[in-house]
Amino acid sequence: MHQLTNTRRSLGITFPAKNRAEIVLWAPQARHAAIKVYGHPTALPLKSEELGYWCAETDDIRPGDLYTFILDGETERPDPASLSQPQGVHGPSEAVNTAHFDWTDQDWPNHPLEDYVLYELHTGTFTSEGTFAAIEEKLDYLKSLGVTAIEIMPIAQFPETRNWGYDGVFPFAAQNSYGGVEGLHHLVNACHAKGLAVVLDVVYNHFGPEGNYTNDYGPYLTGKYCTPWGKAINFDDAWCDGVRRFFTENALMWLRDFHIDALRLDAVHAIKDFSPKHILEEIREQVDLLMENTGRRHYLIIESDLNDPRFISPPSEHGYGMDAQWMDEFHHALRVTVGEARKGYYADFTGINHLAKSYKDAYVYDGQYSVTRERYFGSSVENRPGQQFIVFSQNHDQIGNRMLGERSSQLYSFNILKLMAGAVMVSPYLPLLFMGEEWAEPNPFLYFVSHTETELVEAVRQGRKEEFSEFHAEGDVPDPSAEATFQQSKLQWDLLTEEPHQTLVQYYQTLIALRKQHPALRHLNRANLDVSVLEKQQTILL
Amino acid sequence: MHQLTNTRRSLGITFPAKNRAEIVLWAPQARHAAIKVYGHPTALPLKSEELGYWCAETDDIRPGDLYTFILDGETERPDPASLSQPQGVHGPSEAVNTAHFDWTDQDWPNHPLEDYVLYELHTGTFTSEGTFAAIEEKLDYLKSLGVTAIEIMPIAQFPETRNWGYDGVFPFAAQNSYGGVEGLHHLVNACHAKGLAVVLDVVYNHFGPEGNYTNDYGPYLTGKYCTPWGKAINFDDAWCDGVRRFFTENALMWLRDFHIDALRLDAVHAIKDFSPKHILEEIREQVDLLMENTGRRHYLIIESDLNDPRFISPPSEHGYGMDAQWMDEFHHALRVTVGEARKGYYADFTGINHLAKSYKDAYVYDGQYSVTRERYFGSSVENRPGQQFIVFSQNHDQIGNRMLGERSSQLYSFNILKLMAGAVMVSPYLPLLFMGEEWAEPNPFLYFVSHTETELVEAVRQGRKEEFSEFHAEGDVPDPSAEATFQQSKLQWDLLTEEPHQTLVQYYQTLIALRKQHPALRHLNRANLDVSVLEKQQTILL
Repeated sequence: MHQLTNTRRSLGITFPAKNRAEIVLWAPQARHAAIKVYGHPTALPLKSEELGYWCAETDDIRPGDLYTFILDGETERPDPASLSQPQGVHGPSEAVNTAHFDWTDQDWPNHPLEDYVLYELHTGTFTSEGTFAAIEEKLDYLKSLGVTAIEIMPIAQFPETRNWGYDGVFPFAAQNSYGGVEGLHHLVNACHAKGLAVVLDVVYNHFGPEGNYTNDYGPYLTGKYCTPWGKAINFDDAWCDGVRRFFTENALMWLRDFHIDALRLDAVHAIKDFSPKHILEEIREQVDLLMENTGRRHYLIIESDLNDPRFISPPSEHGYGMDAQWMDEFHHALRVTVGEARKGYYADFTGINHLAKSYKDAYVYDGQYSVTRERYFGSSVENRPGQQFIVFSQNHDQIGNRMLGERSSQLYSFNILKLMAGAVMVSPYLPLLFMGEEWAEPNPFLYFVSHTETELVEAVRQGRKEEFSEFHAEGDVPDPSAEATFQQSKLQWDLLTEEPHQTLVQYYQTLIALRKQHPALRHLNRANLDVSVLEKQQTILL
Repeated sequence: MHQLTNTRRSLGITFPAKNRAEIVLWAPQARHAAIKVYGHPTALPLKSEELGYWCAETDDIRPGDLYTFILDGETERPDPASLSQPQGVHGPSEAVNTAHFDWTDQDWPNHPLEDYVLYELHTGTFTSEGTFAAIEEKLDYLKSLGVTAIEIMPIAQFPETRNWGYDGVFPFAAQNSYGGVEGLHHLVNACHAKGLAVVLDVVYNHFGPEGNYTNDYGPYLTGKYCTPWGKAINFDDAWCDGVRRFFTENALMWLRDFHIDALRLDAVHAIKDFSPKHILEEIREQVDLLMENTGRRHYLIIESDLNDPRFISPPSEHGYGMDAQWMDEFHHALRVTVGEARKGYYADFTGINHLAKSYKDAYVYDGQYSVTRERYFGSSVENRPGQQFIVFSQNHDQIGNRMLGERSSQLYSFNILKLMAGAVMVSPYLPLLFMGEEWAEPNPFLYFVSHTETELVEAVRQGRKEEFSEFHAEGDVPDPSAEATFQQSKLQWDLLTEEPHQTLVQYYQTLIALRKQHPALRHLNRANLDVSVLEKQQTILL
């Protein structure tokens, strides 16, 4: 009962047959485990199985039922593999039957990876409603813009309603305030109907700081490694198999049960795994099996800060087999080229020569000394096609890392905005836009949270203030916990009919159309690209 | 001046020409650095160079001069790259010219790796004198025994005179009480004259707890990883290049300047490095360049607890290119087969079936669930020749990990000792003996230290007691700090003329000779080996 299979989810509550619920919980530290279903007089004890799993089958649970687990007769907790948290991170879980949705995308083929033109969006601020349903209303617009895939920032259940998504604590649960399971099913189906692929950002390197109850269940974390978020997720220490399976199941679930086309794995450099088989290899293998079974295509895209080709090399070359990776270095080189001050991580970038290097070699640092990292950094990435790299002139991080969250629109002239759009779109890589970029949205994209624990709220507020202490002269740090900070970060769709916003959208439309039509731009052959720099004129010839 | 080169050492004090000393220090945290030479009226300031290096040239330093470095005008410390600590770990360093020794081993070819029959010894307890010079007197005996290589437990300078060697704090300095640089030169030269190769055990995964002054010089350690010894050596964090070079220089020095034939790298699983190029790959590359330059052959042997073929795979298969690895699992399976209780790490081993698996597949755990590790463990190691694995029926760790440090001689019958010797010697792997094993030395090999810091002495004593708390019924834990514990661990050479010791030595001689002569044993072709188990009879047919 506790074996991983790619054909169906086998963690949490599932409904393998009508009126038949299967419960599988991994709680290796528990001496006793039971499930409490709301409205039922008594808790149902689970049977202990091998390797820390607890299981039961019952015809007494229905989709929609609320439940918790009770460990050792006293500790009551939501399900770490919960698909729905209707009352938030601290409330009970809700049993969900993912087979209930009537998909109409049977003929959806997914795009070849090289045809991806990505549009990154944050559900809460993309629309005034901040829901999956509201995204659907914008699909015609996105289609007319020409992008071929939306990339949704993380949606795993987080505290309350305001969060970028990287503080999620229920990796299997689509955020309730966004519309939950049903809203996401509906959105993906609608995207496919419009010919748009859906990329989902998932976080397998840490849990958020509030509402993470995994520690009550088992060693999800290990003290062997320290990450920016504290202890690392346990991918190679004692009991890691349960954790490895948890995240592998998670990847399979989104692709299989939600028809997600590709995953964007957040910050894989913070996934610490010295096992002979890296967890990313394991996920790759399972996703390959899934694709064999379903005939659908799925891509695994990583955010990596390591400049290590091993991650995107195929297994035949002892790589982890990831399909593509984000390329922050292209962004940094581009931004310095157009005038960004060489402070912080920009200090490593010289401008146009580095931009040229990124056009040609993908990685800017492939063995050179990095001043900010204080070490020789990176390795050369040869023979990997252009479709394995994703480039952008801004994204959620690069905007939100600024104290005032200014988008490019507030930093550069209209001409520079057009120049940067062109620089991304003619690259031999996959372009990614951040929502609103195409109309020069003037609103910021600020850092916002809605934690409920007072101490945590204050810690986040102070942390943000300290991070930008040297910039205080430039104004106050917006309060991450304030509702206003979140509201200010929303897109203003009514600008679309105004100038110069309208003109810029048309410019983006033209550029994207050009990229799709021109064979030299469409086929991402890095080897055929010649790059020359005229440094004095600050010009790159491609 | 601060570039790594394989042709000569370029850290610490060197003498590139007669009466010309070059000083290179890596101290990236210092604002000022000077060298104080004992007997000189003033300290000589060092010049700051790139990447944290400090350098000077002078004709005012001679081999034999004592010196320290003075950081920021106040902190006086010995040289982390010191070759000699005549007054111990807390005293000044001594300038050494390694070119002074008159080598006579120009024609020494080193053995092909498959001809290695290793004899592990601990310098302090191998002889009553406990010196390199005293080892030389036993070389004729070792030669007559038939072993082809001695493997010397670590000799990097440690506190006082009693230590296994894994508490070394000056990786470049041969322990003064053993005979220092000159003693080691003389020993290696003598070994080569007798046709014996020399393997040196080196520790690149931690520094000892007393006399480690590296922290005053720079970030040799990183808090990113936690090892059994605390913070990990910094191989991939900011400033790691200086640390990587330090250990790469160290490997090159032993091979080049001390004519060491092979290194045994201790516990590489505790070397944490997520760089695109692992530090072991980097050392491999540099050693390859050295071999090209000198025409000598050197081997890199690892102790690894990861069952990960990547370490011993060639670079062409994206491996780290290590020549061979120790195989504890063969030992554990063998010991359980002859009756060892399945406690502690032995709990994972079933006995004869696992021994058969190790004969056939090298790794016992190549993907199965391990009860002691509480995870699925290891990966299959195919296509790697037998000479890449080193097996033994006992070694310093397996003996010393016991509370009373009993060698096999105190645990098994004479017949079982012969059986185990045979089991090792007929394996398709490289055999290793632990000193005295061949005559069933009855003395234990206990854990001993001679730290001078009172708190540390007490901590080690308590730690050892706690480690064996469940065995207190079996007697008191020998005090690791007592001189007697060290003395008790010495070999009794006079037993060699007594029975049954003499008979066992002759048995080992015959076995080793047989292995050398018989083509099926000499050529380590794993593919030609058939293994059958008759479980009822507790018999393996090879």
